[in-house]
Amino acid sequence: MRLLDQTINAIPKSLNEDAYQAAKDRLANQAKPAGSLGVMEDISARLAAIKGTIDVHLENKQIVTCAGDHGVVEEGVSLFPSEVTPQMVYNFANQGASVNVIGKHAGASVMAADLGVNHDFEADLPIFHKKVRHGTANFTKEPAMTKEEAILSIEAGIEIVNELHSKKPIDLLGTGDMGIGNTTPSTAIIASFSGIAVEELTGRGTGIDDTALKNKINVIKKGLALHNPNPNDPIDVLSKVGGLEIGGLAGLVLGAAVNGIPVICDGLISTAGALIACELAPNAKNYLFASHKSVEVGHQFMHERLGLEPLIDLKFRLGEGTGAALCMELLDLSTRILADIKTFEEVGIVNAQ
Amino acid sequence: MRLLDQTINAIPKSLNEDAYQAAKDRLANQAKPAGSLGVMEDISARLAAIKGTIDVHLENKQIVTCAGDHGVVEEGVSLFPSEVTPQMVYNFANQGASVNVIGKHAGASVMAADLGVNHDFEADLPIFHKKVRHGTANFTKEPAMTKEEAILSIEAGIEIVNELHSKKPIDLLGTGDMGIGNTTPSTAIIASFSGIAVEELTGRGTGIDDTALKNKINVIKKGLALHNPNPNDPIDVLSKVGGLEIGGLAGLVLGAAVNGIPVICDGLISTAGALIACELAPNAKNYLFASHKSVEVGHQFMHERLGLEPLIDLKFRLGEGTGAALCMELLDLSTRILADIKTFEEVGIVNAQ
Repeated sequence: MRLLDQTINAIPKSLNEDAYQAAKDRLANQAKPAGSLGVMEDISARLAAIKGTIDVHLENKQIVTCAGDHGVVEEGVSLFPSEVTPQMVYNFANQGASVNVIGKHAGASVMAADLGVNHDFEADLPIFHKKVRHGTANFTKEPAMTKEEAILSIEAGIEIVNELHSKKPIDLLGTGDMGIGNTTPSTAIIASFSGIAVEELTGRGTGIDDTALKNKINVIKKGLALHNPNPNDPIDVLSKVGGLEIGGLAGLVLGAAVNGIPVICDGLISTAGALIACELAPNAKNYLFASHKSVEVGHQFMHERLGLEPLIDLKFRLGEGTGAALCMELLDLSTRILADIKTFEEVGIVNAQ
Repeated sequence: MRLLDQTINAIPKSLNEDAYQAAKDRLANQAKPAGSLGVMEDISARLAAIKGTIDVHLENKQIVTCAGDHGVVEEGVSLFPSEVTPQMVYNFANQGASVNVIGKHAGASVMAADLGVNHDFEADLPIFHKKVRHGTANFTKEPAMTKEEAILSIEAGIEIVNELHSKKPIDLLGTGDMGIGNTTPSTAIIASFSGIAVEELTGRGTGIDDTALKNKINVIKKGLALHNPNPNDPIDVLSKVGGLEIGGLAGLVLGAAVNGIPVICDGLISTAGALIACELAPNAKNYLFASHKSVEVGHQFMHERLGLEPLIDLKFRLGEGTGAALCMELLDLSTRILADIKTFEEVGIVNAQ
């Protein structure tokens, strides 16, 4: 059995119900009105269920930023040229990009991964070297990649988590993306799964104007009409209108789930990857947290399909893992809320409730 | 001139425009799509304008949690008895409460302040001892306090900031509250200023049921009808239907503004205090940040009146300074985003824009 199938089969069907109940009980008895820390309480209980204890410590935090190029950029869907993709990978490796700054603040390591950048990186560049091919094909003319390449890109993501986790157990994983043009395949993916009209799903990416937005919508519609991806076959969707980094991002989620690691997905592209993962293995959702609500309109439809509520809405539209990095601090804090806030009994206060 | 008037007169009329512009310029040139870190960019620019530099370091973070009791509790407006107020003050002093846990995570010191708790604390308890009186009067029968007591409570808040800041300069202040029954006066305050119907403004506080909610609405209406507070005279509003800790919270905001310290207000009660402060000294708003959107319905009307957008919406309804503490990490992070994310020029990337 190949790695993808092995991984999907090995993801646990459910979380630790005893730890979940112990968390709920403790939260209800803490010296504060019941439920008054809202979403933070829910997060802490799910983390307890994932880790099997109410005293969770999220020490080793890791962000992996998957990069790939997109043939569809030649259709004029992005404000930036494809050359920026490898330049940003160097920027990640030099720790100078937005995700590096936000990751550092969250106490997380940030590693970039080349899944399909149209550039040959030096072998000693400190990134994951997992290139499947030099960028996708232009999906308005041919499938973005073969089915085999789609599977390889997912398996590369799984391998990254397995390698990192075997060296030093990861307590919390965050996903991020870099790839000029990649809101276009991400939008095509949610359109494929949901059947919602492309016009309703398409946003401005890095900031294109009205004319370019109309063109982007037409490009996505053209790709979907040409290939007619099967919504019941996530590999078909990924191969026809997806991206290599999106496959890698799906693999990160599957790799996290199989290793029992909570994973935060970032913006539109990371969430497209998470969607592929959860369409392949619905149990992976148990380990998945949504970070922010992107300005990109398609993002909310992905969250709806995943049944996830994003934690913050700070009008981000960047990717890279910036939203995931920011939300790592919230997950971390939720574990302290659960373990460290004392109960009414512990502090000797009359509980009115 | 007494401290309150001195303070109001000394608050700067405007922030540092040069630093603000330098921040905007740097943000526009960073290696990311323009504006793609959304609200975090806006925060970082305002902090630059407050501090007069684009390299802001928020190291000494302080949360002050003001406590007071409320005579109106005898009307059955709260789920908890007034005895819980002093018990929670001891809990703050022992660092065991929610705000202590969240403050610690944010790297902030948390100090409680007794503005008007109906209990005599030991003189060596590590809190600010600023009791103006042993709780307010029941405002359905008489004014909550005298005008002189209202001013003294505000001045106590100013003194706390002045004392702390003179010992060790505060880089970022957060406000918090404790006082059983205090969503009732806070709601009465926003009703007084806005003229909006009490029914529209009143929430469930720590979790009262429908019957108790109706009673709470009637209690607030009775107080407003009896005293008819003058919306153009914040001291009149505070004295007739306010609270001693709410006066202290107003003083914290004025004290922060006069010392050039950015200040984050917390939930409904802290924001009621901030409202009193900004009605007295509109320039104080320049220094003020809203933390979270509380589940309490009156909160949004306060934010509207202050012209502030809360940073997070995690369904908190606790107070204590918990939301302010959580948002300290966001303000801190925004300063690193501004100073540390490299520009296109610095990393040698072609800027398409």
